[in-house]
Amino acid sequence: MSDADELARRVAETLRAREGTGPALGIGLEDAREGYARVAMIVRKDMLNGKNMAHGGMIFTLADTAFAYACNCRNANTVAQSASISFLAPGREGDRLQAEAREVSLAGRSGVYQVTVSNQHGETVAVFQGHSRTIGGAILPEA
Amino acid sequence: MSDADELARRVAETLRAREGTGPALGIGLEDAREGYARVAMIVRKDMLNGKNMAHGGMIFTLADTAFAYACNCRNANTVAQSASISFLAPGREGDRLQAEAREVSLAGRSGVYQVTVSNQHGETVAVFQGHSRTIGGAILPEA
Amino acid sequence: MSDADELARRVAETLRAREGTGPALGIGLEDAREGYARVAMIVRKDMLNGKNMAHGGMIFTLADTAFAYACNCRNANTVAQSASISFLAPGREGDRLQAEAREVSLAGRSGVYQVTVSNQHGETVAVFQGHSRTIGGAILPEA
Amino acid sequence: MSDADELARRVAETLRAREGTGPALGIGLEDAREGYARVAMIVRKDMLNGKNMAHGGMIFTLADTAFAYACNCRNANTVAQSASISFLAPGREGDRLQAEAREVSLAGRSGVYQVTVSNQHGETVAVFQGHSRTIGGAILPEA
Repeated sequence: MSDADELARRVAETLRAREGTGPALGIGLEDAREGYARVAMIVRKDMLNGKNMAHGGMIFTLADTAFAYACNCRNANTVAQSASISFLAPGREGDRLQAEAREVSLAGRSGVYQVTVSNQHGETVAVFQGHSRTIGGAILPEA
Repeated sequence: MSDADELARRVAETLRAREGTGPALGIGLEDAREGYARVAMIVRKDMLNGKNMAHGGMIFTLADTAFAYACNCRNANTVAQSASISFLAPGREGDRLQAEAREVSLAGRSGVYQVTVSNQHGETVAVFQGHSRTIGGAILPEA
Repeated sequence: MSDADELARRVAETLRAREGTGPALGIGLEDAREGYARVAMIVRKDMLNGKNMAHGGMIFTLADTAFAYACNCRNANTVAQSASISFLAPGREGDRLQAEAREVSLAGRSGVYQVTVSNQHGETVAVFQGHSRTIGGAILPEA
Repeated sequence: MSDADELARRVAETLRAREGTGPALGIGLEDAREGYARVAMIVRKDMLNGKNMAHGGMIFTLADTAFAYACNCRNANTVAQSASISFLAPGREGDRLQAEAREVSLAGRSGVYQVTVSNQHGETVAVFQGHSRTIGGAILPEA
């Protein structure tokens, strides 16, 4: 593992350990490398909307979590500025949704990440694009 | 109250009663009228990200909930196709966030809704735009 | 007219006078006030796509122009960071499209504007949301 | 070249030949394959905004053109429903901008495409995500 990938993994694990949302929703960190993160969760009854489908907000939250881990990978404090999401297929109770974030572009303090959310059958459930901004500070104490 | 507003209120209450996410996050339905809905929630510890701010996914979920109530207001089954959100100010633990959805356009089966999320000080936390599609069926049994 | 509205009008006229795109597309400035701008253009043959409809890029350009005038209204140099657009009805050759931009939120250097594009029949053709950032400098020489 | 790629190329060339915008802006079709298209243009003076940079609308138009060619590649008439764009670096007069569209997802009549716009130095100028819908009919006469 490269130093950059190792740093990305440590940042993601640290963010995951400090947050409330990931544990509350059962979001698991599966992989984190430079400019990349993959997370997953099982759709529970308390994540459904009034039509018995996974709430769009829960799908967004999973994608946004992968985005956050990927855009903070260099240990420079980075936040979401804006994001857009297209919903392509419904999520159902019991589905295992996976979100995979990849860095598309990073220029100065501005980054763009694409996240694909898919289910256990390999179907794409949603596609997400996030725009990040690095605002100063670090996640891990700098050595 | 007009019949259209009364129908909107009944649809929103029905969606709210059937869903898992609203109760799990403590989202309260404050108002629903034709093409309009307002909801609110208190930011809890289990809604924070790894930086001690409200998770972007939780803010999106609140906005998306208001959007869902507004775009289903005529009792025609309508789903989100895509949405975009801009994050403007952080949410903190204990903040009371309110999301207000308004119909911007409705043409055939395609609608656009704008949602503004603000905190208890009247500051705008996020602005959301959702694109909906009516897909057939009804929420309430049709009379 | 308030001083703020007068400044907005002068900034918009100055931007319009300096740009290449507005004249090339025949975009007319109809109104500019604090946090608001309205522009219009006629859809020409050279603005059509391969299906004989107004090219989405031309509709976006009209909306983006209104956005630019509105977000620079205070004479603080401000650029688009991101934008999203939903297309609701086609534009046809000869249609007169009008774009109306309104400030939804402004907090520090970050602003959100909504733009509605409509045709001569009052139908909504597209809805646009733009996120701006103020980057320093002025459009008009500061007095 | 596969039949699918050959069909994609013919559809793109046909759209290009029928449209007004591409020739007016000097947009050249560089490549089209199944789920993929690449186009390019030189930024001219009449494509600049009031700050001497490439107008955001012109950058969007280039990206939207690549998106249109890619999402119609199977000769099923497909239109843009919504799109979002993040602007990352300015374009200047004389820059050669290239837009490369890739299919991210296609499920039933709903597709998502990502487009990256870059300049002659390989810098990313903008990232675009488009959501398409297939609406019936064909571009080329069906054999």
